[in-house]
Amino acid sequence: MEYQHGGDIYSNQVKWDFSANVNPLGMPEDVKEAVRRSAEESGCYPDSQCRKLVQSLAAYHQVQEEMILCGNGAADLIFQIAFALKPKTGLVMAPTFSEYAQALAAAESQVMFFPLKEEEGFAVNLVSLKGWVEEKIDEGNKPEIFFLCNPNNPTGLFLPAEELNSLAEFLEEKKIRLILDECFVDFLENPEEVSLIPYLREFPHLVILKAFTKLYAMAGLRLGYMLTADQVLLEKIWKTRQPWPVSTPAQMAGLAALSQEEYRCRTKEMIRDGRRQLAAGLSQLGFFVFPSQGNYLFFRDQRKGIQEGALYRSCLKRGLLIRSCGNYPGLDGSYYRVCVKGKEENQILLSLLAEAVSEPFPSGQKEEG
Amino acid sequence: MEYQHGGDIYSNQVKWDFSANVNPLGMPEDVKEAVRRSAEESGCYPDSQCRKLVQSLAAYHQVQEEMILCGNGAADLIFQIAFALKPKTGLVMAPTFSEYAQALAAAESQVMFFPLKEEEGFAVNLVSLKGWVEEKIDEGNKPEIFFLCNPNNPTGLFLPAEELNSLAEFLEEKKIRLILDECFVDFLENPEEVSLIPYLREFPHLVILKAFTKLYAMAGLRLGYMLTADQVLLEKIWKTRQPWPVSTPAQMAGLAALSQEEYRCRTKEMIRDGRRQLAAGLSQLGFFVFPSQGNYLFFRDQRKGIQEGALYRSCLKRGLLIRSCGNYPGLDGSYYRVCVKGKEENQILLSLLAEAVSEPFPSGQKEEG
Repeated sequence: MEYQHGGDIYSNQVKWDFSANVNPLGMPEDVKEAVRRSAEESGCYPDSQCRKLVQSLAAYHQVQEEMILCGNGAADLIFQIAFALKPKTGLVMAPTFSEYAQALAAAESQVMFFPLKEEEGFAVNLVSLKGWVEEKIDEGNKPEIFFLCNPNNPTGLFLPAEELNSLAEFLEEKKIRLILDECFVDFLENPEEVSLIPYLREFPHLVILKAFTKLYAMAGLRLGYMLTADQVLLEKIWKTRQPWPVSTPAQMAGLAALSQEEYRCRTKEMIRDGRRQLAAGLSQLGFFVFPSQGNYLFFRDQRKGIQEGALYRSCLKRGLLIRSCGNYPGLDGSYYRVCVKGKEENQILLSLLAEAVSEPFPSGQKEEG
Repeated sequence: MEYQHGGDIYSNQVKWDFSANVNPLGMPEDVKEAVRRSAEESGCYPDSQCRKLVQSLAAYHQVQEEMILCGNGAADLIFQIAFALKPKTGLVMAPTFSEYAQALAAAESQVMFFPLKEEEGFAVNLVSLKGWVEEKIDEGNKPEIFFLCNPNNPTGLFLPAEELNSLAEFLEEKKIRLILDECFVDFLENPEEVSLIPYLREFPHLVILKAFTKLYAMAGLRLGYMLTADQVLLEKIWKTRQPWPVSTPAQMAGLAALSQEEYRCRTKEMIRDGRRQLAAGLSQLGFFVFPSQGNYLFFRDQRKGIQEGALYRSCLKRGLLIRSCGNYPGLDGSYYRVCVKGKEENQILLSLLAEAVSEPFPSGQKEEG
């Protein structure tokens, strides 16, 4: 099975990994300490219900505990939702995070792609989207669920809460369940203007996905959660998954992470500054940079005659791993994604990219590898 | 969703937990150290393919690397197998570990139970089993897969490799896939006379499940694996699961665990002695003790007129958690399971049980709680 994601530092000789969108500040010291402490606690089975963590998450998000379900990373929950619902047809955008379509296919659902347009900068056009869905319904091909990543991966573009509200209302009315992936919301400058968490009660079928992975740089620990007012769905998932999906280290680390208020503030500032620095630098190098608001930047290598993935290969030769977006439906190998890090690391990225683009390339001819 | 397993020290006030079958020696110090070290490594995504761990496991079991797939505990793999195969009908024994039936039901398979007989001490009678399966085939109700736990949980009884070989041959012939759960094999006195791992090549559809959970007392870390020569099945599972099911702490802990040769020897001795001590003690208290060869003992409270689960409740009042087996299909609330620990702890268990059985009980009357 081919690996289709960022962060694969295991298959490659990598000195600089800009392919995975995790917090450049690294895991908070208190979280590391929780992992170390977990060594003594991991002899027993983990709490199947993640009670302490759920309690803290409920207080953190100001929602009821019954609305929260933890999983072995958000990716785990994506599959669990698909398996629990087994929708006939599921809708995803193109391009977006590939696991939605993968999970739908695993549950034997038909996958429909709503194509985001390059000429619209791959932004979600709400009017087009609604019209397109209406059309599909008229054709008798209604999707039962819709996985929406907001901000979207790999573009970094987002719909604000106001538009999302209108979309969620439309979807509730059409009986299409919205699975809203908010894993990258916390990197935005104003998350509170984007998240639908305060509206969970208003939309009884809405599901929101969140992860600790990116925000707290704890991708290796595997911890995500979902929020929904839909108790029937939660009960279904309990029945279709193993009893202990969340490890003790992950539960303890999650608890420690939630109290990192100052770390979250520093993160937001760092990402905001780094995003500006990188966007300017990438543009200067001649790339077309999309206006991402996330902790990653999406750009196109628009050099004439350049081969697909050529930039990826030039970077890898220099020990730099960037995310080639050629395997996203709706994109080709001229699109790339890099994550935002601290000032100095961003500068290294830009220098290595400058070297890579100054390399002569054999145009119009198939390269090796 | 009701919790149906041992080890639930989170819902109860427990001083002594004899309900979960984990190694009483506790997690080896080197494994704990690996978990502590993992704190620094868990900022990145874990290796999706668990390459280092798979390499070590292949050497440990003397099988090829391609035959191994790691998961988030063996329970995770049970569900993944069910979801990947989606068998119309699956066979399990009664009584046995409940997750097989749970996973089959989650995959919308019909679950068939082969009833183990009390008068045969709940042992697997190979002749009866084969005859029963033949009968089902004749009735047009052939199971596609068969989950067999060996030694069985909760009874601790096992089929030796010779009989298993004959069963595996029979099942291959009938095109019924055998999923053999060997999670408790390592606690037996002669594991090499029981495990089918050396025969994986001979049975192209055989799957063997293993876990680190019990043997290395690392239930909280979630790490299991499966072995099979069936590359088609492995490819299917890769397609129907998330890319990062195994956390970095689990991968690092697993690697450290495999080199614990001396710990494994000590474990076997301790369990052998403890099993004898407990079996004798439980019999003396008047319980009917089944001849378990695992790291747990299965017994019946045969006091006349005693209510189902009464012993469980009497124990809990004393801070002692034992496994009531009333929710196993084929058993009732007069059956219990306790794990084997070290000499002193076993003595405490026996003393508390002695107190519990000397308690007067209201016969023939429904108790509270």
